[in-house]
Amino acid sequence: MENIKKVAIVGGVHGNELTGAYLVKKWQKNPEIFKKQSLDISVFLGNPKACEINRRYVDQDLNRSFSKRVLEDHSLPEYEANRAKVLKELISGHSFLIDLHTTTANMGMTLVLSKKDPYSERVAAILAEKFDDIKILRWLSNDEGDFINTLTPHGFTIEAGPIPQGVLRADIFQRCEEIVYETLKIISNDINQYETKETVVYDIVKTVDYPRTAAGEIEAIIHPSLQDRDYKALNSGDPIFVTFDGKVIPYEGETFYPVFINEAAYYEKGIAFCLCEKNLI
Amino acid sequence: MENIKKVAIVGGVHGNELTGAYLVKKWQKNPEIFKKQSLDISVFLGNPKACEINRRYVDQDLNRSFSKRVLEDHSLPEYEANRAKVLKELISGHSFLIDLHTTTANMGMTLVLSKKDPYSERVAAILAEKFDDIKILRWLSNDEGDFINTLTPHGFTIEAGPIPQGVLRADIFQRCEEIVYETLKIISNDINQYETKETVVYDIVKTVDYPRTAAGEIEAIIHPSLQDRDYKALNSGDPIFVTFDGKVIPYEGETFYPVFINEAAYYEKGIAFCLCEKNLI
Repeated sequence: MENIKKVAIVGGVHGNELTGAYLVKKWQKNPEIFKKQSLDISVFLGNPKACEINRRYVDQDLNRSFSKRVLEDHSLPEYEANRAKVLKELISGHSFLIDLHTTTANMGMTLVLSKKDPYSERVAAILAEKFDDIKILRWLSNDEGDFINTLTPHGFTIEAGPIPQGVLRADIFQRCEEIVYETLKIISNDINQYETKETVVYDIVKTVDYPRTAAGEIEAIIHPSLQDRDYKALNSGDPIFVTFDGKVIPYEGETFYPVFINEAAYYEKGIAFCLCEKNLI
Repeated sequence: MENIKKVAIVGGVHGNELTGAYLVKKWQKNPEIFKKQSLDISVFLGNPKACEINRRYVDQDLNRSFSKRVLEDHSLPEYEANRAKVLKELISGHSFLIDLHTTTANMGMTLVLSKKDPYSERVAAILAEKFDDIKILRWLSNDEGDFINTLTPHGFTIEAGPIPQGVLRADIFQRCEEIVYETLKIISNDINQYETKETVVYDIVKTVDYPRTAAGEIEAIIHPSLQDRDYKALNSGDPIFVTFDGKVIPYEGETFYPVFINEAAYYEKGIAFCLCEKNLI
Protein backbone atom coordinates (compact mmCIF):
# COMPACT_ATOMS: atom_id res chain seq x y z
CA MET A 1 0.00 0.00 0.00
CA GLU A 2 1.04 3.59 -0.66
CA ASN A 3 3.05 5.83 1.63
CA ILE A 4 1.31 8.88 3.04
CA LYS A 5 3.16 12.22 3.08
CA LYS A 6 0.64 14.94 3.97
CA VAL A 7 -1.77 14.60 6.87
CA ALA A 8 -4.45 17.06 7.99
CA ILE A 9 -5.90 17.01 11.52
CA VAL A 10 -9.17 18.85 12.13
CA GLY A 11 -10.96 19.51 15.42
CA GLY A 12 -13.92 21.72 16.28
CA VAL A 13 -15.94 20.89 13.16
CA HIS A 14 -18.71 20.96 15.76
CA GLY A 15 -18.15 23.98 17.99
CA ASN A 16 -19.45 22.45 21.23
CA GLU A 17 -17.34 19.29 20.98
CA LEU A 18 -14.47 20.83 22.91
CA THR A 19 -11.99 17.93 22.94
CA GLY A 20 -10.97 18.23 19.29
CA ALA A 21 -11.04 22.02 19.36
CA TYR A 22 -8.70 22.17 22.38
CA LEU A 23 -6.37 19.53 20.93
CA VAL A 24 -6.09 21.66 17.77
CA LYS A 25 -5.43 24.77 19.87
CA LYS A 26 -2.71 22.87 21.76
CA TRP A 27 -1.01 21.76 18.54
CA GLN A 28 -1.29 25.19 16.94
CA LYS A 29 0.41 26.74 19.99
CA ASN A 30 3.08 24.00 20.08
CA PRO A 31 3.99 23.23 16.46
CA GLU A 32 7.25 21.59 17.66
CA ILE A 33 5.18 18.57 18.74
CA PHE A 34 4.93 17.46 15.10
CA LYS A 35 8.38 18.66 14.00
CA LYS A 36 10.04 15.30 14.64
CA GLN A 37 7.55 13.55 12.37
CA SER A 38 8.59 12.46 8.88
CA LEU A 39 5.05 13.41 7.82
CA ASP A 40 3.96 16.88 6.77
CA ILE A 41 1.16 17.60 9.29
CA SER A 42 -1.30 20.50 9.17
CA VAL A 43 -3.80 21.29 11.91
CA PHE A 44 -7.08 23.18 11.41
CA LEU A 45 -9.94 24.41 13.58
CA GLY A 46 -13.01 23.30 11.61
CA ASN A 47 -15.69 25.77 12.62
CA PRO A 48 -14.07 28.72 14.43
CA LYS A 49 -17.30 30.75 14.68
CA ALA A 50 -19.24 27.82 16.22
CA CYS A 51 -16.34 27.25 18.65
CA GLU A 52 -16.49 30.90 19.66
CA ILE A 53 -20.20 30.67 20.53
CA ASN A 54 -19.91 27.10 21.92
CA ARG A 55 -22.59 25.66 19.65
CA ARG A 56 -22.58 22.76 17.23
CA TYR A 57 -22.98 25.11 14.26
CA VAL A 58 -23.99 28.61 13.27
CA ASP A 59 -26.47 27.96 10.41
CA GLN A 60 -26.23 24.25 9.56
CA ASP A 61 -24.21 21.15 10.44
CA LEU A 62 -20.75 21.69 8.92
CA ASN A 63 -20.08 17.95 8.91
CA ARG A 64 -22.98 17.45 6.49
CA SER A 65 -21.85 20.31 4.20
CA PHE A 66 -19.23 18.59 2.02
CA SER A 67 -21.50 17.31 -0.75
CA LYS A 68 -20.68 18.36 -4.30
CA ARG A 69 -23.96 20.31 -4.30
CA VAL A 70 -22.83 22.52 -1.39
CA LEU A 71 -19.18 22.78 -2.42
CA GLU A 72 -20.01 23.88 -5.98
CA ASP A 73 -22.79 26.37 -5.23
CA HIS A 74 -21.04 29.63 -4.36
CA SER A 75 -24.29 31.50 -3.87
CA LEU A 76 -25.24 29.63 -0.67
CA PRO A 77 -25.48 32.12 2.21
CA GLU A 78 -24.96 29.86 5.26
CA TYR A 79 -21.77 30.24 7.29
CA GLU A 80 -21.04 26.51 7.07
CA ALA A 81 -21.69 26.35 3.32
CA ASN A 82 -18.90 28.91 2.98
CA ARG A 83 -16.61 27.46 5.66
CA ALA A 84 -16.84 24.07 3.90
CA LYS A 85 -15.35 25.62 0.74
CA VAL A 86 -12.52 27.19 2.76
CA LEU A 87 -11.77 23.84 4.41
CA LYS A 88 -11.80 22.09 1.04
CA GLU A 89 -9.10 24.52 -0.16
CA LEU A 90 -7.06 24.11 3.05
CA ILE A 91 -7.24 20.32 3.04
CA SER A 92 -6.78 19.85 -0.70
CA GLY A 93 -3.50 18.05 -1.39
CA HIS A 94 -3.51 16.13 1.91
CA SER A 95 -3.77 12.35 1.60
CA PHE A 96 -5.00 11.49 5.09
CA LEU A 97 -7.47 13.35 7.32
CA ILE A 98 -8.01 12.79 11.06
CA ASP A 99 -11.21 14.52 12.19
CA LEU A 100 -11.85 14.77 15.95
CA HIS A 101 -15.38 14.48 17.36
CA THR A 102 -17.17 13.59 20.57
CA THR A 103 -20.57 12.10 21.33
CA THR A 104 -22.93 11.96 24.31
CA ALA A 105 -23.45 8.25 23.48
CA ASN A 106 -21.51 5.56 25.34
CA MET A 107 -19.43 4.65 22.27
CA GLY A 108 -15.97 4.64 23.83
CA MET A 109 -13.23 5.35 21.29
CA THR A 110 -14.68 4.79 17.83
CA LEU A 111 -12.97 5.23 14.47
CA VAL A 112 -15.56 6.23 11.86
CA LEU A 113 -14.81 5.46 8.22
CA SER A 114 -16.78 7.54 5.70
CA LYS A 115 -15.81 5.64 2.58
CA LYS A 116 -14.78 2.17 1.45
CA ASP A 117 -11.01 2.57 1.46
CA PRO A 118 -8.67 -0.35 2.14
CA TYR A 119 -5.82 1.88 3.35
CA SER A 120 -7.93 3.66 6.01
CA GLU A 121 -9.52 0.36 7.05
CA ARG A 122 -6.08 -1.14 7.46
CA VAL A 123 -4.84 1.73 9.65
CA ALA A 124 -8.03 1.51 11.75
CA ALA A 125 -7.57 -2.25 12.12
CA ILE A 126 -3.96 -1.80 13.28
CA LEU A 127 -5.15 0.72 15.89
CA ALA A 128 -7.97 -1.60 17.05
CA GLU A 129 -5.42 -4.38 17.41
CA LYS A 130 -3.23 -2.16 19.59
CA PHE A 131 -5.97 -0.58 21.75
CA ASP A 132 -8.65 -2.88 23.18
CA ASP A 133 -11.20 -0.07 23.62
CA ILE A 134 -11.29 0.97 19.95
CA LYS A 135 -14.27 0.09 17.77
CA ILE A 136 -14.48 0.60 14.00
CA LEU A 137 -17.65 1.99 12.47
CA ARG A 138 -18.45 2.60 8.80
CA TRP A 139 -20.99 5.28 7.89
CA LEU A 140 -20.80 5.31 4.13
CA SER A 141 -23.76 7.41 3.09
CA ASN A 142 -25.78 10.09 4.74
CA ASP A 143 -28.90 11.64 3.24
CA GLU A 144 -28.25 14.92 5.03
CA GLY A 145 -24.96 15.57 3.20
CA ASP A 146 -21.34 14.46 3.04
CA PHE A 147 -18.83 14.34 5.92
CA ILE A 148 -15.54 16.29 5.92
CA ASN A 149 -13.71 12.97 5.62
CA THR A 150 -14.83 12.67 2.00
CA LEU A 151 -12.37 15.50 1.12
CA THR A 152 -9.26 13.30 1.22
CA PRO A 153 -8.53 9.87 -0.26
CA HIS A 154 -7.84 8.42 3.22
CA GLY A 155 -8.65 9.10 6.86
CA PHE A 156 -11.21 8.65 9.59
CA THR A 157 -13.04 10.39 12.38
CA ILE A 158 -12.19 9.72 16.01
CA GLU A 159 -15.54 9.77 17.81
CA ALA A 160 -15.06 9.74 21.60
CA GLY A 161 -17.75 9.32 24.23
CA PRO A 162 -19.64 9.54 26.41
CA ILE A 163 -19.05 13.22 27.09
CA PRO A 164 -21.52 16.12 27.27
CA GLN A 165 -21.34 18.96 24.78
CA GLY A 166 -19.43 21.92 26.15
CA VAL A 167 -17.28 19.80 28.48
CA LEU A 168 -13.60 18.75 28.51
CA ARG A 169 -12.68 15.54 30.31
CA ALA A 170 -8.98 14.85 30.86
CA ASP A 171 -9.40 11.08 30.31
CA ILE A 172 -11.03 11.56 26.89
CA PHE A 173 -8.67 14.40 25.93
CA GLN A 174 -5.62 12.25 26.66
CA ARG A 175 -7.04 9.14 24.93
CA CYS A 176 -7.83 11.10 21.74
CA GLU A 177 -4.35 12.62 21.77
CA GLU A 178 -2.75 9.20 22.23
CA ILE A 179 -4.75 7.72 19.33
CA VAL A 180 -3.77 10.62 17.04
CA TYR A 181 -0.07 10.12 17.83
CA GLU A 182 -0.35 6.37 17.28
CA THR A 183 -2.17 6.94 13.97
CA LEU A 184 0.62 9.23 12.80
CA LYS A 185 3.21 6.65 13.85
CA ILE A 186 1.43 3.94 11.87
CA ILE A 187 0.97 5.96 8.68
CA SER A 188 4.54 7.28 8.81
CA ASN A 189 5.62 3.63 8.47
CA ASP A 190 5.03 1.21 5.64
CA ILE A 191 1.78 -0.34 6.88
CA ASN A 192 2.52 -3.57 5.03
CA GLN A 193 4.91 -4.40 7.85
CA TYR A 194 1.97 -4.87 10.25
CA GLU A 195 0.45 -8.31 10.56
CA THR A 196 -3.01 -8.62 8.99
CA LYS A 197 -5.78 -9.88 11.23
CA GLU A 198 -9.50 -10.09 10.76
CA THR A 199 -11.11 -7.13 12.50
CA VAL A 200 -14.72 -6.43 13.48
CA VAL A 201 -16.34 -3.46 11.77
CA TYR A 202 -19.84 -2.11 12.40
CA ASP A 203 -21.68 -0.91 9.29
CA ILE A 204 -24.53 1.55 9.85
CA VAL A 205 -27.45 0.28 7.79
CA LYS A 206 -30.31 2.39 9.10
CA THR A 207 -31.41 4.96 11.66
CA VAL A 208 -34.37 4.85 14.06
CA ASP A 209 -36.25 8.00 15.12
CA TYR A 210 -38.03 8.68 18.40
CA PRO A 211 -41.81 8.12 18.38
CA ARG A 212 -43.24 11.57 17.67
CA THR A 213 -46.58 13.39 17.56
CA ALA A 214 -47.91 14.70 14.25
CA ALA A 215 -46.35 18.04 15.23
CA GLY A 216 -42.93 16.39 15.57
CA GLU A 217 -42.68 16.48 19.36
CA ILE A 218 -41.05 13.35 20.83
CA GLU A 219 -43.45 11.05 22.69
CA ALA A 220 -40.99 8.54 24.13
CA ILE A 221 -37.34 8.39 25.15
CA ILE A 222 -34.61 5.73 25.11
CA HIS A 223 -35.51 2.85 27.45
CA PRO A 224 -33.12 2.43 30.40
CA SER A 225 -32.17 -1.06 29.22
CA LEU A 226 -31.01 0.32 25.83
CA GLN A 227 -29.34 3.46 27.23
CA ASP A 228 -25.51 3.24 27.20
CA ARG A 229 -25.57 -0.16 25.44
CA ASP A 230 -23.94 0.96 22.20
CA TYR A 231 -22.45 -1.94 20.20
CA LYS A 232 -24.47 -4.57 22.15
CA ALA A 233 -26.81 -6.79 20.13
CA LEU A 234 -30.40 -5.52 19.92
CA ASN A 235 -32.86 -8.36 19.41
CA SER A 236 -36.53 -8.41 18.51
CA GLY A 237 -38.59 -7.88 21.66
CA ASP A 238 -35.91 -5.86 23.51
CA PRO A 239 -37.27 -2.58 24.95
CA ILE A 240 -36.05 0.46 23.00
CA PHE A 241 -38.30 3.34 24.09
CA VAL A 242 -40.42 4.28 27.09
CA THR A 243 -43.16 6.91 26.88
CA PHE A 244 -43.42 9.72 29.42
CA ASP A 245 -46.22 7.67 31.00
CA GLY A 246 -44.02 4.60 31.38
CA LYS A 247 -45.31 2.54 28.43
CA VAL A 248 -42.52 0.33 27.06
CA ILE A 249 -42.00 0.09 23.28
CA PRO A 250 -40.08 -3.01 22.14
CA TYR A 251 -37.86 -3.41 19.10
CA GLU A 252 -39.24 -5.44 16.23
CA GLY A 253 -36.96 -6.70 13.51
CA GLU A 254 -33.75 -8.56 12.85
CA THR A 255 -30.78 -8.37 15.19
CA PHE A 256 -28.55 -5.32 14.76
CA TYR A 257 -25.96 -3.43 16.83
CA PRO A 258 -27.05 0.08 17.90
CA VAL A 259 -24.71 3.10 18.04
CA PHE A 260 -25.17 6.82 18.73
CA ILE A 261 -27.84 5.88 21.29
CA ASN A 262 -29.28 9.14 22.70
CA GLU A 263 -26.76 11.44 20.98
CA ALA A 264 -27.80 15.01 21.94
CA ALA A 265 -27.16 16.45 18.48
CA TYR A 266 -29.33 13.85 16.73
CA TYR A 267 -32.69 14.71 18.34
CA GLU A 268 -33.17 17.40 15.68
CA LYS A 269 -31.98 15.02 12.93
CA GLY A 270 -34.68 12.47 13.75
CA ILE A 271 -32.19 9.86 15.00
CA ALA A 272 -32.67 8.13 18.37
CA PHE A 273 -30.00 5.57 17.43
CA CYS A 274 -28.35 3.99 14.39
CA LEU A 275 -28.41 0.26 13.67
CA CYS A 276 -25.35 -1.61 12.43
CA GLU A 277 -24.45 -4.91 10.92
CA LYS A 278 -21.39 -6.54 12.44
CA ASN A 279 -18.91 -7.50 9.72
CA LEU A 280 -15.28 -8.46 9.35
CA ILE A 281 -12.57 -6.68 7.39
CA MET B 1 -44.88 24.35 61.13
CA GLU B 2 -47.36 25.88 58.71
CA ASN B 3 -49.46 24.05 56.16
CA ILE B 4 -48.78 24.73 52.50
CA LYS B 5 -51.70 25.28 50.11
CA LYS B 6 -50.31 26.57 46.82
CA VAL B 7 -47.36 24.94 45.11
CA ALA B 8 -45.64 26.01 41.86
CA ILE B 9 -43.51 23.60 39.82
CA VAL B 10 -41.17 25.05 37.22
CA GLY B 11 -39.05 23.27 34.61
CA GLY B 12 -37.06 24.55 31.66
CA VAL B 13 -35.67 27.61 33.43
CA HIS B 14 -32.61 26.53 31.44
CA GLY B 15 -33.76 25.63 27.93
CA ASN B 16 -31.25 22.83 27.31
CA GLU B 17 -31.99 20.99 30.57
CA LEU B 18 -34.68 18.86 28.98
CA THR B 19 -35.77 16.75 31.97
CA GLY B 20 -37.65 19.52 33.77
CA ALA B 21 -39.04 20.97 30.54
CA TYR B 22 -40.48 17.59 29.46
CA LEU B 23 -41.88 16.88 32.94
CA VAL B 24 -43.67 20.24 32.79
CA LYS B 25 -44.99 19.43 29.29
CA LYS B 26 -46.23 16.07 30.59
CA TRP B 27 -48.09 17.67 33.51
CA GLN B 28 -49.51 20.46 31.36
CA LYS B 29 -50.91 17.85 28.94
CA ASN B 30 -52.24 15.68 31.81
CA PRO B 31 -53.58 18.04 34.48
CA GLU B 32 -55.59 15.16 35.99
CA ILE B 33 -52.31 13.87 37.51
CA PHE B 34 -52.51 16.60 40.18
CA LYS B 35 -56.31 16.64 40.52
CA LYS B 36 -56.35 14.16 43.39
CA GLN B 37 -53.98 16.34 45.42
CA SER B 38 -55.30 18.45 48.30
CA LEU B 39 -52.74 21.04 47.20
CA ASP B 40 -53.37 23.70 44.57
CA ILE B 41 -50.57 22.95 42.07
CA SER B 42 -49.51 25.13 39.13
CA VAL B 43 -46.96 24.11 36.54
CA PHE B 44 -44.87 26.53 34.44
CA LEU B 45 -42.29 26.31 31.67
CA GLY B 46 -39.58 28.70 32.87
CA ASN B 47 -37.90 29.87 29.67
CA PRO B 48 -40.07 28.88 26.69
CA LYS B 49 -37.90 30.68 24.11
CA ALA B 50 -34.69 29.03 25.34
CA CYS B 51 -36.49 25.65 25.29
CA GLU B 52 -37.53 26.28 21.70
CA ILE B 53 -33.93 26.90 20.60
CA ASN B 54 -32.49 24.24 22.96
CA ARG B 55 -30.06 26.61 24.67
CA ARG B 56 -29.52 27.49 28.31
CA TYR B 57 -30.76 31.05 27.72
CA VAL B 58 -31.44 33.64 25.05
CA ASP B 59 -29.65 36.72 26.43
CA GLN B 60 -28.61 35.91 30.00
CA ASP B 61 -29.01 33.19 32.64
CA LEU B 62 -32.68 33.33 33.74
CA ASN B 63 -31.82 31.64 37.03
CA ARG B 64 -29.60 34.59 37.99
CA SER B 65 -32.26 37.15 36.99
CA PHE B 66 -34.44 37.31 40.11
CA SER B 67 -32.56 40.00 42.02
CA LYS B 68 -34.52 43.08 43.10
CA ARG B 69 -32.35 45.08 40.72
CA VAL B 70 -33.54 43.09 37.69
CA LEU B 71 -37.14 42.63 38.83
CA GLU B 72 -37.66 46.36 39.48
CA ASP B 73 -35.95 47.76 36.37
CA HIS B 74 -38.58 47.63 33.64
CA SER B 75 -36.28 49.21 31.06
CA LEU B 76 -33.97 46.18 30.82
CA PRO B 77 -34.04 44.83 27.25
CA GLU B 78 -32.92 41.20 27.75
CA TYR B 79 -35.44 38.41 27.15
CA GLU B 80 -34.71 36.86 30.56
CA ALA B 81 -34.93 40.19 32.40
CA ASN B 82 -38.50 40.39 31.08
CA ARG B 83 -39.35 36.71 31.50
CA ALA B 84 -38.24 36.95 35.17
CA LYS B 85 -40.91 39.62 35.76
CA VAL B 86 -43.58 37.43 34.12
CA LEU B 87 -42.58 34.45 36.28
CA LYS B 88 -42.65 36.62 39.40
CA GLU B 89 -46.28 37.51 38.60
CA LEU B 90 -47.19 33.88 37.82
CA ILE B 91 -45.56 32.49 40.95
CA SER B 92 -46.67 35.26 43.32
CA GLY B 93 -49.07 33.86 45.92
CA HIS B 94 -47.55 30.37 45.87
CA SER B 95 -45.92 29.25 49.12
CA PHE B 96 -43.67 26.46 47.83
CA LEU B 97 -41.67 26.28 44.60
CA ILE B 98 -40.10 23.17 43.08
CA ASP B 99 -37.65 24.11 40.34
CA LEU B 100 -36.29 21.32 38.12
CA HIS B 101 -32.72 21.39 36.83
CA THR B 102 -30.02 19.04 35.56
CA THR B 103 -26.23 19.14 35.65
CA THR B 104 -23.39 17.51 33.75
CA ALA B 105 -21.69 16.97 37.14
CA ASN B 106 -21.93 13.64 38.92
CA MET B 107 -24.17 15.02 41.69
CA GLY B 108 -26.88 12.38 41.72
CA MET B 109 -30.20 13.71 43.02
CA THR B 110 -29.48 16.95 44.86
CA LEU B 111 -31.97 19.27 46.57
CA VAL B 112 -30.64 22.83 46.43
CA LEU B 113 -31.87 25.30 49.04
CA SER B 114 -31.50 28.97 48.11
CA LYS B 115 -32.36 30.47 51.47
CA LYS B 116 -32.21 29.68 55.17
CA ASP B 117 -35.72 28.37 55.70
CA PRO B 118 -36.51 25.75 58.37
CA TYR B 119 -39.64 24.49 56.55
CA SER B 120 -37.83 23.77 53.24
CA GLU B 121 -34.90 22.25 55.13
CA ARG B 122 -37.29 19.99 56.98
CA VAL B 123 -38.99 18.79 53.77
CA ALA B 124 -35.58 18.19 52.18
CA ALA B 125 -34.43 16.24 55.25
CA ILE B 126 -37.56 14.04 55.13
CA LEU B 127 -36.86 13.31 51.45
CA ALA B 128 -33.18 12.54 52.15
CA GLU B 129 -34.30 10.17 54.91
CA LYS B 130 -36.60 8.35 52.47
CA PHE B 131 -34.26 8.22 49.44
CA ASP B 132 -30.64 7.17 50.04
CA ASP B 133 -29.37 8.85 46.87
CA ILE B 134 -30.54 12.38 47.81
CA LYS B 135 -28.05 15.01 48.95
CA ILE B 136 -28.93 18.44 50.33
CA LEU B 137 -27.00 21.50 49.18
CA ARG B 138 -27.39 25.11 50.30
CA TRP B 139 -26.36 27.88 47.93
CA LEU B 140 -27.42 30.98 49.80
CA SER B 141 -25.83 33.82 47.89
CA ASN B 142 -24.67 34.26 44.35
CA ASP B 143 -22.82 37.31 43.08
CA GLU B 144 -24.26 36.85 39.60
CA GLY B 145 -27.88 37.35 40.72
CA ASP B 146 -30.72 35.66 42.58
CA PHE B 147 -32.25 32.24 41.84
CA ILE B 148 -35.93 31.73 40.96
CA ASN B 149 -36.35 29.97 44.31
CA THR B 150 -36.08 33.31 46.09
CA LEU B 151 -39.57 34.19 44.73
CA THR B 152 -41.48 32.06 47.26
CA PRO B 153 -41.14 31.67 51.04
CA HIS B 154 -40.41 27.95 50.67
CA GLY B 155 -39.09 25.49 48.11
CA PHE B 156 -35.99 24.01 46.53
CA THR B 157 -34.38 23.05 43.27
CA ILE B 158 -34.03 19.43 42.23
CA GLU B 159 -30.64 19.24 40.51
CA ALA B 160 -30.18 15.87 38.78
CA GLY B 161 -27.01 14.54 37.19
CA PRO B 162 -24.89 13.56 35.48
CA ILE B 163 -26.68 14.18 32.20
CA PRO B 164 -25.56 16.10 29.12
CA GLN B 165 -27.39 19.23 28.03
CA GLY B 166 -29.94 18.50 25.31
CA VAL B 167 -30.49 14.89 26.42
CA LEU B 168 -33.36 13.03 28.14
CA ARG B 169 -32.51 9.92 30.15
CA ALA B 170 -35.40 7.76 31.33
CA ASP B 171 -33.71 6.93 34.65
CA ILE B 172 -33.24 10.59 35.57
CA PHE B 173 -36.67 11.59 34.22
CA GLN B 174 -38.39 8.97 36.36
CA ARG B 175 -36.33 9.75 39.49
CA CYS B 176 -37.12 13.49 39.26
CA GLU B 177 -40.80 12.71 38.78
CA GLU B 178 -40.80 10.38 41.79
CA ILE B 179 -39.13 13.00 43.99
CA VAL B 180 -41.65 15.65 42.92
CA TYR B 181 -44.58 13.37 43.82
CA GLU B 182 -43.01 12.48 47.17
CA THR B 183 -42.37 16.17 47.89
CA LEU B 184 -46.03 16.96 47.21
CA LYS B 185 -47.09 14.11 49.45
CA ILE B 186 -44.92 15.39 52.30
CA ILE B 187 -46.03 19.01 52.07
CA SER B 188 -49.69 18.04 51.73
CA ASN B 189 -49.34 16.51 55.21
CA ASP B 190 -48.53 18.15 58.50
CA ILE B 191 -44.75 17.74 58.41
CA ASN B 192 -44.58 17.76 62.22
CA GLN B 193 -45.75 14.16 62.07
CA TYR B 194 -42.38 13.10 60.58
CA GLU B 195 -39.63 12.09 62.96
CA THR B 196 -36.79 14.64 63.18
CA LYS B 197 -33.31 13.35 62.51
CA GLU B 198 -30.01 15.10 62.05
CA THR B 199 -29.31 15.41 58.32
CA VAL B 200 -26.13 16.25 56.43
CA VAL B 201 -26.23 19.45 54.40
CA TYR B 202 -23.49 20.80 52.15
CA ASP B 203 -23.04 24.59 52.25
CA ILE B 204 -21.31 26.18 49.24
CA VAL B 205 -18.69 28.55 50.64
CA LYS B 206 -16.64 29.39 47.56
CA THR B 207 -16.07 28.66 43.90
CA VAL B 208 -12.82 27.75 42.11
CA ASP B 209 -12.12 28.82 38.52
CA TYR B 210 -10.01 27.02 35.91
CA PRO B 211 -6.44 28.28 35.51
CA ARG B 212 -6.66 30.77 32.62
CA THR B 213 -4.41 32.85 30.38
CA ALA B 214 -4.49 36.64 30.63
CA ALA B 215 -6.95 36.50 27.70
CA GLY B 216 -9.30 34.28 29.71
CA GLU B 217 -8.66 31.03 27.81
CA ILE B 218 -8.56 27.97 30.09
CA GLU B 219 -5.09 26.46 30.52
CA ALA B 220 -5.99 23.32 32.48
CA ILE B 221 -8.95 21.00 32.98
CA ILE B 222 -10.37 18.95 35.84
CA HIS B 223 -7.90 16.23 36.88
CA PRO B 224 -9.18 12.66 36.33
CA SER B 225 -8.95 11.93 40.05
CA LEU B 226 -11.31 14.85 40.85
CA GLN B 227 -13.70 14.25 37.90
CA ASP B 228 -17.03 12.71 39.00
CA ARG B 229 -16.07 12.88 42.70
CA ASP B 230 -18.73 15.40 43.75
CA TYR B 231 -19.39 15.37 47.53
CA LYS B 232 -16.12 13.49 48.27
CA ALA B 233 -13.65 15.24 50.62
CA LEU B 234 -10.99 17.29 48.81
CA ASN B 235 -7.81 17.56 50.87
CA SER B 236 -4.74 19.73 50.51
CA GLY B 237 -2.36 18.09 48.02
CA ASP B 238 -5.10 16.29 46.04
CA PRO B 239 -4.81 16.89 42.25
CA ILE B 240 -7.53 19.22 40.96
CA PHE B 241 -6.38 20.29 37.48
CA VAL B 242 -4.16 18.96 34.72
CA THR B 243 -2.77 21.23 32.00
CA PHE B 244 -3.03 20.30 28.32
CA ASP B 245 0.63 19.26 28.59
CA GLY B 246 -0.07 16.89 31.49
CA LYS B 247 1.19 19.04 34.37
CA VAL B 248 -0.76 18.27 37.56
CA ILE B 249 -2.02 21.13 39.75
CA PRO B 250 -2.78 20.14 43.36
CA TYR B 251 -5.33 21.67 45.72
CA GLU B 252 -3.99 23.83 48.52
CA GLY B 253 -6.18 24.73 51.47
CA GLU B 254 -8.47 23.30 54.09
CA THR B 255 -10.66 20.28 53.45
CA PHE B 256 -13.93 20.97 51.61
CA TYR B 257 -16.48 18.97 49.63
CA PRO B 258 -16.61 19.86 45.90
CA VAL B 259 -19.83 20.00 43.85
CA PHE B 260 -20.70 21.07 40.29
CA ILE B 261 -17.36 19.58 39.18
CA ASN B 262 -17.01 20.22 35.41
CA GLU B 263 -20.55 21.58 34.92
CA ALA B 264 -20.77 22.57 31.23
CA ALA B 265 -22.70 25.78 31.88
CA TYR B 266 -20.17 27.07 34.42
CA TYR B 267 -17.13 27.36 32.12
CA GLU B 268 -18.36 30.81 31.08
CA LYS B 269 -19.14 31.73 34.71
CA GLY B 270 -15.56 31.08 35.83
CA ILE B 271 -16.48 28.06 37.96
CA ALA B 272 -14.60 24.76 37.63
CA PHE B 273 -16.22 23.50 40.85
CA CYS B 274 -17.79 24.81 44.08
CA LEU B 275 -16.45 23.99 47.54
CA CYS B 276 -18.76 23.12 50.43
CA GLU B 277 -18.63 22.76 54.15
CA LYS B 278 -20.37 19.67 55.47
CA ASN B 279 -22.85 20.61 58.20
CA LEU B 280 -25.81 19.12 60.03
CA ILE B 281 -29.37 20.39 60.12
